[in-house]
Amino acid sequence: MRILVSNDDGILAPGLRALALAMREFGDVIVVGPEENQSANGHRKTLSRPLRISKVNIGEDVEAYSVDGSPADCVAMTVLGVIKQPIDMVVSGINRGANLGQDLTYSGTVAAAFEATIQRRKAVAFSLDNPSLNADYSAAAQAACMVVREVIQNALPPMTLLNVNVPNLPFDQIKGFKVTRQGMRVYRDRLDERFDPMGRPYYWIGGDAPTGDITVEGTDIWAIHNGYVSITPVQLDMTAHTLIDSLRDWHFN
Amino acid sequence: MRILVSNDDGILAPGLRALALAMREFGDVIVVGPEENQSANGHRKTLSRPLRISKVNIGEDVEAYSVDGSPADCVAMTVLGVIKQPIDMVVSGINRGANLGQDLTYSGTVAAAFEATIQRRKAVAFSLDNPSLNADYSAAAQAACMVVREVIQNALPPMTLLNVNVPNLPFDQIKGFKVTRQGMRVYRDRLDERFDPMGRPYYWIGGDAPTGDITVEGTDIWAIHNGYVSITPVQLDMTAHTLIDSLRDWHFN
Repeated sequence: MRILVSNDDGILAPGLRALALAMREFGDVIVVGPEENQSANGHRKTLSRPLRISKVNIGEDVEAYSVDGSPADCVAMTVLGVIKQPIDMVVSGINRGANLGQDLTYSGTVAAAFEATIQRRKAVAFSLDNPSLNADYSAAAQAACMVVREVIQNALPPMTLLNVNVPNLPFDQIKGFKVTRQGMRVYRDRLDERFDPMGRPYYWIGGDAPTGDITVEGTDIWAIHNGYVSITPVQLDMTAHTLIDSLRDWHFN
Repeated sequence: MRILVSNDDGILAPGLRALALAMREFGDVIVVGPEENQSANGHRKTLSRPLRISKVNIGEDVEAYSVDGSPADCVAMTVLGVIKQPIDMVVSGINRGANLGQDLTYSGTVAAAFEATIQRRKAVAFSLDNPSLNADYSAAAQAACMVVREVIQNALPPMTLLNVNVPNLPFDQIKGFKVTRQGMRVYRDRLDERFDPMGRPYYWIGGDAPTGDITVEGTDIWAIHNGYVSITPVQLDMTAHTLIDSLRDWHFN
């Protein structure tokens, strides 16, 4: 079994290295990550310019490459053959900070897993609920192994993947694993207007970090808040199936 | 009613102008589009650098601005107040080329509508099934009016939007409107290795344009293939709800 490890925090992120080392338990590991941080970059795929790939040293015993593109580019290039070894499975992360609720639409970490799914590979995205640059990924790496062991032994339908979030706790304080659904993120975006030295305005999309509704049992946000590893099965079909019937009563014609 | 019109093909795209002019039937129109083409850029939101906005002349009677960011940035900046007028609704497009099936995960046009939904605004994404630079958007603009009229008169639940694709036909040859679900895209990505004048390799993610399974009635791909306007209700919840029970039988612990 050969596992591709990618991420969106960039090739030098400690979470990527922690995941790569952990995955060696299951077979050969290849790391292909973006040269630069691609957080909140969504499922971007680079079709309008060519891409470069470079061998990178990220520490002992890990074959690693960086790509001057997005997480999806890393996955697509590798699976399509830039490295002449077949890829059986793609894991992404461990992301610096959780990817919960509507975060999935923004997350580059999850986008790498989406791309893997589109390229017909099993895929799991991992995130640690700690946005600090000094986060400790050891418990998350241990949890990742426990999830991947099951993913290898079980089937996932086409066009589906797992989105895994790990609470920021020592491994022995994690309460267990919960299969969850996406919860409701509460974003607190605020526009911050500033003026450059020439007096021209520029704008930051800022505001406080998002929170989420922690009261609804069974959601990813609830599980993380309560000390569980959250495992959400995710699909690429975004159809709001429950609305189809009512929309047929609208009068478009 | 004030309608924000954005897109991912860039501020100068003819489909954007066609949609903006058509929307004047419903109230005040403001156009805020990306400076540059953002196709296949996914739901990218720019949090690591500030953004600029500039007034742009895209023709008579349309107030228009460009932003040096993504479609989601255009929507977020505007709704968060860079233009000091409240926005009631966001329409995105008309995209040059269809956004069908799994395209939704890549599409910047749909990402603008996702962002509007997250910012609690009604949102509709429009695409024309013609990738040509010389496409005629008049029928699609007419169809867009017929959809928006209904969206104004009916309710959509939070965190849902409509993804509308219009076949490349004169208006009187369009067969009608179909409420659809996402179909199955067939991507044909191929990696194209080339060498620069210094002999160093670079790579295009290329291959033939995606096709799709036209045989499954009720999908967006089927509807467009058969000459209907496809209206897919889309939700931000990507949970594969049907997998939750079977995943609970896996042995993560």
